[in-house]
This record gives sequence, structure tokens and C-alpha cells, in this order.
Amino acid sequence: MISRGVKAPELTVAGWLNTDEPLQLEKLRGQVVVLHAFQMLCPGCVTHGLPQAAAIHELYRSDEVQVIGLHSVFEHHHVMTPDALKVFVHEYRLKFPIAIDLPSDSGPVPVMMQKLNLQGTPSLVLIDKDGTIRFTQLGRVNDMQVGNMIGRLLA
Amino acid sequence: MISRGVKAPELTVAGWLNTDEPLQLEKLRGQVVVLHAFQMLCPGCVTHGLPQAAAIHELYRSDEVQVIGLHSVFEHHHVMTPDALKVFVHEYRLKFPIAIDLPSDSGPVPVMMQKLNLQGTPSLVLIDKDGTIRFTQLGRVNDMQVGNMIGRLLA
Amino acid sequence: MISRGVKAPELTVAGWLNTDEPLQLEKLRGQVVVLHAFQMLCPGCVTHGLPQAAAIHELYRSDEVQVIGLHSVFEHHHVMTPDALKVFVHEYRLKFPIAIDLPSDSGPVPVMMQKLNLQGTPSLVLIDKDGTIRFTQLGRVNDMQVGNMIGRLLA
Amino acid sequence: MISRGVKAPELTVAGWLNTDEPLQLEKLRGQVVVLHAFQMLCPGCVTHGLPQAAAIHELYRSDEVQVIGLHSVFEHHHVMTPDALKVFVHEYRLKFPIAIDLPSDSGPVPVMMQKLNLQGTPSLVLIDKDGTIRFTQLGRVNDMQVGNMIGRLLA
Repeated sequence: MISRGVKAPELTVAGWLNTDEPLQLEKLRGQVVVLHAFQMLCPGCVTHGLPQAAAIHELYRSDEVQVIGLHSVFEHHHVMTPDALKVFVHEYRLKFPIAIDLPSDSGPVPVMMQKLNLQGTPSLVLIDKDGTIRFTQLGRVNDMQVGNMIGRLLA
Repeated sequence: MISRGVKAPELTVAGWLNTDEPLQLEKLRGQVVVLHAFQMLCPGCVTHGLPQAAAIHELYRSDEVQVIGLHSVFEHHHVMTPDALKVFVHEYRLKFPIAIDLPSDSGPVPVMMQKLNLQGTPSLVLIDKDGTIRFTQLGRVNDMQVGNMIGRLLA
Repeated sequence: MISRGVKAPELTVAGWLNTDEPLQLEKLRGQVVVLHAFQMLCPGCVTHGLPQAAAIHELYRSDEVQVIGLHSVFEHHHVMTPDALKVFVHEYRLKFPIAIDLPSDSGPVPVMMQKLNLQGTPSLVLIDKDGTIRFTQLGRVNDMQVGNMIGRLLA
Repeated sequence: MISRGVKAPELTVAGWLNTDEPLQLEKLRGQVVVLHAFQMLCPGCVTHGLPQAAAIHELYRSDEVQVIGLHSVFEHHHVMTPDALKVFVHEYRLKFPIAIDLPSDSGPVPVMMQKLNLQGTPSLVLIDKDGTIRFTQLGRVNDMQVGNMIGRLLA
């Protein structure tokens, strides 16, 4: 994963769901950004990661904490398409903005996933009010710990 | 749903996963058959129905109880394709035989779903050793109740 | 534990809660009896065993399946008294009949627990319609399995 | 409950478990204090409150966050005695310091519970590094929210 303490690279994505206009990290200074990288057919994402992202989206006002889903498909590209994602987001009633990671010209791992050096899904990335990455983790993170870290970044 | 007490119509499906040769209800006389109709992007199926089907598959010897998944797509057909189902079954590590319901010429509801008169997914259908439908339910059924019904049919 | 297949010994207990008159196994022929042995300060009993007993009590008519709690205190006798049990049963809103196992003259293990040869709590004992013990287990049993066994005994 | 923003009253209790010497809030300046008021036979405390307190105790170093259980018995005093509490704490493997609230001369509600103006159990009280009460709540608080508040107080 990308080193903590490094400035988060700007979002370069292929498209968005659940938002009228694209989000840019640069314009989110002053807010804590919770970036949740997932794949729609990844069981750990569906069972733990996305419900946690939805819970964060529920708990905080969006001018305090901005939750962003990042659909980073690095396998089975032929079935985890943007069209399939739209159905998934509709059926699972996800309400927070979701970015579609930009496919790479040179391999299966999409661009944003490369830039963030993520090793798989689900991955959680916490970005502070200044745009600096303060936490990244592959796999399950418990709710109390996530709440704790966001609370620290908000204080 | 189809009336309980009626003989289960034979499986007419487009294909199978997790089995070398197609299953036929007629050849399963003497076993209790648990038919779990689902769609791969249906949250209730993913959260409750499929884990329950997997638990039944784990608990019983397959010559006592045969679990069969039935992928009955009645909406969003363009993304819940057989190819997508294959990835889903692989990622969720489902081990029991899964039939792909036969698309209908005349509408969105596939053939087997029509024959069984299922109203949605997840749907649970229990078939006794003689091939008679003894229970059908749309939605969540609790584990104790399912165990109880299967136990009665086995006795 | 007592061998399965043996006739269940009659209940010899110090008192009852949640029933106007003492229950006798002999008078319960024709019903399946679910005996749940517990201690009020046993975490596994509180978390899994007693909620499962309550779920069985909810699921079945009592003329089909009679759930009986058995408070078998074999340690910390000075604080798991009948008075404490009354408060516990009230606070946890247990509704099924609960027998207070008879203290032994000769040691910490109470009489009924000895007769059933139970090794600890929670213990589940299933007795068929003829009064024969058909299953005993120390520790957690999953809901589907319990439902399955009761279903078989009812059929 | 006591108004948030008020200085927490010093602990005046009848005894302690899980600590060699009594804790005093005054000596905990610089640490966040999580006070969890409970009764050993209160189902909500056993199911949610105490496991949450244990999770906080696990997550943080005790020089950052000091978890303190407060056994505030306001009903059924005859069975929720200090002796019974000792067994409970042993059986549930609670490891954090637990204070036994001081019985009152004038009524069923113990002294510390009165001073904090708690309305029942479980109650959660968060005290900041300066000894000021920053949050109180009767009933269940979700883990993410608790983590968030502690994180803010630590920052």
C-alpha cells in the first residue's frame, strides 16, 4: 500500500454513480475522506466493507466526512462492468458517491488502484482534511477502530 | 407459489454449475430435495438464502438431502449472465449443484420459475422423497424451522 | 453423558418456575421434550443455549414439543440461588417452565445432573415421545441441527 | 443524566475488582475515561454494554483510555451482591477495573449512580482528559460512534 503520510493522488476515474458531478479530492480539503475500494463480486466487500462504508455515510454529515466508493476491478473484468455495477448499487441501495476506477492500458489493475498501490479489495483509505493519507488497510477493519480514526482526524 | 402437495415439475434448465452431469428430480426419489431459487445480485439471497443453502449442503449427506441452487433471473438479465454467475459461484465458494433457469421466449420470468410459480427471490422449495412439493416460501426462513421441516421429511 | 437410547430418568427437582404445577416426564409421553440444562452465570448458556431454548419454545406448540429448563448448579452455589434465578428468569423474560435441580447431599453436582450424567452447562437433552433419550450434547448446537432432530422425533 | 460539560464527580464506591488499588478520576487526568455503568443481571449490559467495554479495553492502551466498570445496583439488591459480582466477572472473563457502587442510606439507587444522575443500565459516560463529562447515554450506543467519540477526545 501507499505509505501513510503521503499526499493522496487525485482521483482519475472512468465515471461516477450517485453524484451529479465528479468529485475531486482537491475540492474536499477541510473534510475527512473515506475511500472504500471494492469489487462488486468480492464477498468480503459485500459482507463487511460496503455495509461499513454505508454506516460511515449515515453517521456523519457529508461536509465533515465524505465517503467515496471506488470500484477497482482487477479480475473478472468481463462481468464486473459499469452496467453490472449500476444494478449492484441499485439492488444494494448504496447511496454514497461511487467512482469507477479507470481501466489500465497495460494490465488488469486499474489506474487509481495502482496509484494508491492497493493490494486487493476491500481496502480502506483514510485521507485527512489536508489531503494526506493517514491510514490504509486491506481486509476487514472493525467499526470501533474506524470510528476512532475518523474521530481523531475530525478533531 | 405452487400449491404444496403437488408433484414437483421436472427441472428444465439452460445449464449447470458444480456438477458433471445434469440432475433430474425423477432420479432423486428417496432423497429430500432442497431447491433454493436465487439471483446473484439479490441482497437477501446473498446474505441469508445462499448461506443457508450452503449450511444445509454441509449438514446432510447428499444421498439424504440434495441441495440444488436455481439461478432464476427475472430482472437485469443483461448483467446476471451465466458468465457472471460462474464468477459469483467461484468467489462465494458455493459447492452445491446450481442450475441456470431457462430463459423464456415470452417474457422476463424464466421457465422453471414459472413452472414453480415462484414470486421472487430468494425462494425455498422443499420436495419430499416421493417428489412432492411440501413447502415453498419467498423470503427469509429461519434455520431452526428449515431444519425442522427437513428432519420431518427425512424421518 | 447418559447413553442415548436409554429411558430418561424422571425429574426429581427442588422447585419450579414458570409453571403452576410440577412437570413429570411420565405425563409428557406423546410430546417431544427438550431439556436445556444451564447455570444462570454461565456465558455460553446466556448467549446461545437459553436463546435457543426460547426459540424452540416459540416455534412449536407445547403439546408437540415441551421445553424444560433445568437449573443445574454445580459451582458457585452461594450466588446462583433460587432467589437469584427468579430475578434472572424475570430479567431475561424466559417463559418456558424451569426446574431447579435438587442439591445433592454428597457433593457439588445436583441430583438430576448426576442422573443424566451431564458434564457441564449448557447441555441439551432431547427425549422422544416414548420417553427415551435420543440426543445429548454439551456446548453449542446449531439451530438447523436442533430443528432437524426435533423434526425427526416429531414425524 | 448529568449535563455534559460538567466536571465528573469523584468515584465514591464500596470496593473494586480487577485492580490492586482503587482508581481515582483525579489521578487519571490526561487519559480519556470510559465509565460503563451496569448490573450483572441486566440483559442489555451483558449482551451489548459489557462486550463493548471489553472491546474498548482491548483496543486502547490503558494510559490512553481507562475503562472502568461501575456496578450500580438499583434493583434486586439481595441477589446482585458483591459476591455474586465476583463470580460474574470471573465467568465472563472481564479484565478491566470494576467499581462497586456505594449503596445509599436513603433508597435503592446507589451513590455514584445518583451523583452521575444515571437513569438506568447500561449507561455509558465518557470523560475527557481534563475530567469533564463529554457524553452520557442510557442504552445501546453503536461501536463506530463510541470509537468516533473516543477518537475525538484523544486527538
